Amino acid sequence: MHPLAEKVLQGDVRATARLLRNIDDRADGWLDALSDLHPHTGNAYVIGITGNPGAGKSTLTDQLIAHYRREGHRVGVIAVDPSSPYTGGAILGDRIRMQRHALDREVFIRSMATRGQLGGLSRSTADATRVLDAWGAKVVIVETVGVGQDELEIARLAHSTVVVMAPGLGDEVQAIKAGILEVADVFCVNKADRDGADATVRDLEMMIALGHELASAGAHSRGHSAGALDLAREELRAKAGEWLVPIVKAVASRGEGIAALAEAIAKHRTWEDSSPLGAAKREERARDELSVVFHDLLRDEATRAVAAPFDAAAKALLRRETDPYTAARALLDAFRGRV
Amino acid sequence: MHPLAEKVLQGDVRATARLLRNIDDRADGWLDALSDLHPHTGNAYVIGITGNPGAGKSTLTDQLIAHYRREGHRVGVIAVDPSSPYTGGAILGDRIRMQRHALDREVFIRSMATRGQLGGLSRSTADATRVLDAWGAKVVIVETVGVGQDELEIARLAHSTVVVMAPGLGDEVQAIKAGILEVADVFCVNKADRDGADATVRDLEMMIALGHELASAGAHSRGHSAGALDLAREELRAKAGEWLVPIVKAVASRGEGIAALAEAIAKHRTWEDSSPLGAAKREERARDELSVVFHDLLRDEATRAVAAPFDAAAKALLRRETDPYTAARALLDAFRGRV
Repeated sequence: MHPLAEKVLQGDVRATARLLRNIDDRADGWLDALSDLHPHTGNAYVIGITGNPGAGKSTLTDQLIAHYRREGHRVGVIAVDPSSPYTGGAILGDRIRMQRHALDREVFIRSMATRGQLGGLSRSTADATRVLDAWGAKVVIVETVGVGQDELEIARLAHSTVVVMAPGLGDEVQAIKAGILEVADVFCVNKADRDGADATVRDLEMMIALGHELASAGAHSRGHSAGALDLAREELRAKAGEWLVPIVKAVASRGEGIAALAEAIAKHRTWEDSSPLGAAKREERARDELSVVFHDLLRDEATRAVAAPFDAAAKALLRRETDPYTAARALLDAFRGRV
Repeated sequence: MHPLAEKVLQGDVRATARLLRNIDDRADGWLDALSDLHPHTGNAYVIGITGNPGAGKSTLTDQLIAHYRREGHRVGVIAVDPSSPYTGGAILGDRIRMQRHALDREVFIRSMATRGQLGGLSRSTADATRVLDAWGAKVVIVETVGVGQDELEIARLAHSTVVVMAPGLGDEVQAIKAGILEVADVFCVNKADRDGADATVRDLEMMIALGHELASAGAHSRGHSAGALDLAREELRAKAGEWLVPIVKAVASRGEGIAALAEAIAKHRTWEDSSPLGAAKREERARDELSVVFHDLLRDEATRAVAAPFDAAAKALLRRETDPYTAARALLDAFRGRV
């Protein structure tokens, strides 16, 4: 076994931090260490926290850490942020918000500065989640900004995904924009003491109802107006074993609604573990997990393998001697070994 | 030549829309049509418009369309949105904001509903840009939400990228978060009649100064506090042929500042066409362009080629009989033909 992997399994915080850096740098047998750790993973429950900037995700995460610590669990946190390598300000900000846990040896907070990093964002996050799982975390919270395909992909890798909204941020519209309805297992309306909180809850209810209506009709039509929430239909769906996405109100800055949020997450976990639709979701997640690692490895390998012909093709493209489609096809053939 | 490609070159709007749909569906010789069109591209100037939700990007885009139409140019618009296939609301909203151009046969507006689409977001956007270029657009405006890696990648494919901010949205912090400093060729502070516009401009100036300082020192350190804008140093940089990112104030809803914005974009274009650093940027863009098509093709091909072993591996992963790293390595070997 890789020596770092061994130390991670003993709960060594420094070794865990070191391995995470090695994974970022693709250094010192990082892939072997990950393989070594894998049989010892699968114990952590992974909670995705996503939503638009300003919704209060970091404060909510901070409160969830405190909640799970009170229950005696070791907690891992991964704060994913498409930050610049120049300006780490945002990450610093997040850390400050969670800093009361900085001296707690049972809490490991990992910020991911994604720019300039090797490999894809989803891949790195998934790797870090597995390391924290092996380190002994019973809960791993992955916090992302809920806009962009990468972030949605990351959210899909979590066991339960909480989408955080706040009144007055235009989140209702943004929720639709970002396509986060599909990834939400629980909605949390944070800053619920503000004006407009009830309106946000209503908008969400409408959106959920509309989403299911369109999905069940197989319709992708636009301009469809949302009907009122049909409670009878909700009941039918619950009986059919579907998960009904709950909406939890919270005021994270005062710790209000955190227990209710944790309970909603726990209910989702039970549903997934016990229902046929939950089993299908677990299978889908295994596919996503493999897909993320496979495509990342593929991209790494191909980039390395065809570096020289790639340079030549890019220069030819710049001189307009080829088109990107023809050039890419030739590179693919070269990679597969039939030049 | 592909019959649709021929019609696109004649400026046929219906054929252009049809080809774009075929590209989305990977249907009817779409790749041949793109290859056929490529020698007829390179005439459009591609402007990226990005920024956070609520900054007023669609209104600004609408005004830029009007500006370029007054100058007699044919204009293409691509609105990229990580939207749900369920809920096309946002796209509809964008269209409404630009609808005064709907009857103008010299304006082609393309909304990209990215979820559920084949191929990557960057790839599809780049393809659509080339089609509108071949159709005869002199300007193609690509509007994206400025958060997430995909969106930043798309911005990098534009000749000039405008990052739009608005006062009071917490954009200053978000700008740092999203790492958009590196992609901005021009900053536009929209809604400049609102309180806090000057503060936003000052924050941007500081951020630009800080970014250059850190970049020139090669420092990626955190917690660095921004110094005041050093004008003498700015002059030195301008003399060295660097592009100094301008900040343009606008009130797009009233059409104010649009001419100044278009002028800033034109200046950036001149700089890129005439300076050694601009030439380096053009080369980098050709590499990005090829990279996007190559990696997308690679992913498509690999997914198809190893579909059956992938299913088996995902099932084994779900039963914890393998780990994703070992399984992905085996899939890669299978794809490269050395099982």
